[in-house]
Amino acid sequence: MKLYFAPGACSLADHIALNEAEIAHDRIKVDLKAHQTEDGRDYYAVNPKGYVPALELDDGQILTENIAILIYIAETVGRMLPARGIERYRALEMLAFISTELHKNYKAFYNPVASDAEKDEAHATLAKRFAFVGEKLNGNRFLLGDLISVADCYLFVMLLWARKFEVELPPSLLSYFDRMRDRPSILKSLKEEGLS
Amino acid sequence: MKLYFAPGACSLADHIALNEAEIAHDRIKVDLKAHQTEDGRDYYAVNPKGYVPALELDDGQILTENIAILIYIAETVGRMLPARGIERYRALEMLAFISTELHKNYKAFYNPVASDAEKDEAHATLAKRFAFVGEKLNGNRFLLGDLISVADCYLFVMLLWARKFEVELPPSLLSYFDRMRDRPSILKSLKEEGLS
Repeated sequence: MKLYFAPGACSLADHIALNEAEIAHDRIKVDLKAHQTEDGRDYYAVNPKGYVPALELDDGQILTENIAILIYIAETVGRMLPARGIERYRALEMLAFISTELHKNYKAFYNPVASDAEKDEAHATLAKRFAFVGEKLNGNRFLLGDLISVADCYLFVMLLWARKFEVELPPSLLSYFDRMRDRPSILKSLKEEGLS
Repeated sequence: MKLYFAPGACSLADHIALNEAEIAHDRIKVDLKAHQTEDGRDYYAVNPKGYVPALELDDGQILTENIAILIYIAETVGRMLPARGIERYRALEMLAFISTELHKNYKAFYNPVASDAEKDEAHATLAKRFAFVGEKLNGNRFLLGDLISVADCYLFVMLLWARKFEVELPPSLLSYFDRMRDRPSILKSLKEEGLS
């Protein structure tokens, strides 16, 4: 497998999941502004949508979209997403929530022409959404309880961004973030992206 | 099962999927402005996030988020989402794309204080994203080819909104929309929500 990523972008979630799953993979860095891969190719030829992540499978197919890639990684390794039962759907529910209610609300911070009002609104919305996640976490080690899931890999990146953009976080998520940051898979991923 | 819905909202995707799967279910209409169910309950007590859809399972658990509910419906009925192989991940990729790149970009149209500039930007972004979906469809009957998936149920609602807000659609999606609108599951769902 080959992950197309940009350092610290949402593709970090997939990178962490690959390391957590101990799946050997190559990584190709993408310059999103120039739409070029580090080996000099036009990134639109890899992913016509132009954004990361993209995962090149061993047969050459390109899979995109965080939720699809994270489920693919979990189902390939046979863990990090319960196979059945309500826990499976709680994990999928959290993946969807992180993607649509956390990730998408960072848009203003990555938009160079966003107004202060838009950024203020993003801060308020994200703080509210993170408060909800903090309540769900409810003192547990991971979102689903004792077992890490791909939703935790994704949430970690959203918390990294929260620290960067000074989004208010509840105490339970601050201690979760500190615990997660010490995991070998995350230390390794941050180092591999040149972020530590 | 019991679906909490608002007429014509994104919960229509789940409603269509339930009818397409021929899963018997009850429906409870929600007034999203008053946060009240049609049987007089506080909707926050059902879904603390306040939005639809929410699916009450037979054991009383409440499942939220479109992607999670659509996968739950498909895995419960054993069709409308391939169980394995690349087709499975293509369906999940499309579900994620519809949710994050189509659905979320309608925000400006549902925001009473959105500016004309924000609406113009939403029109342009959506037209671009729909052009991509039109190319993916590539003359096929459904997104995955010959078999309907839960991604089609979700896409239909996004197209219904595109017609409502006059978003530009490629010809392939216009004919797809007309074909889908004639399906018994969709005719039934529109009628049950008072939309036809």
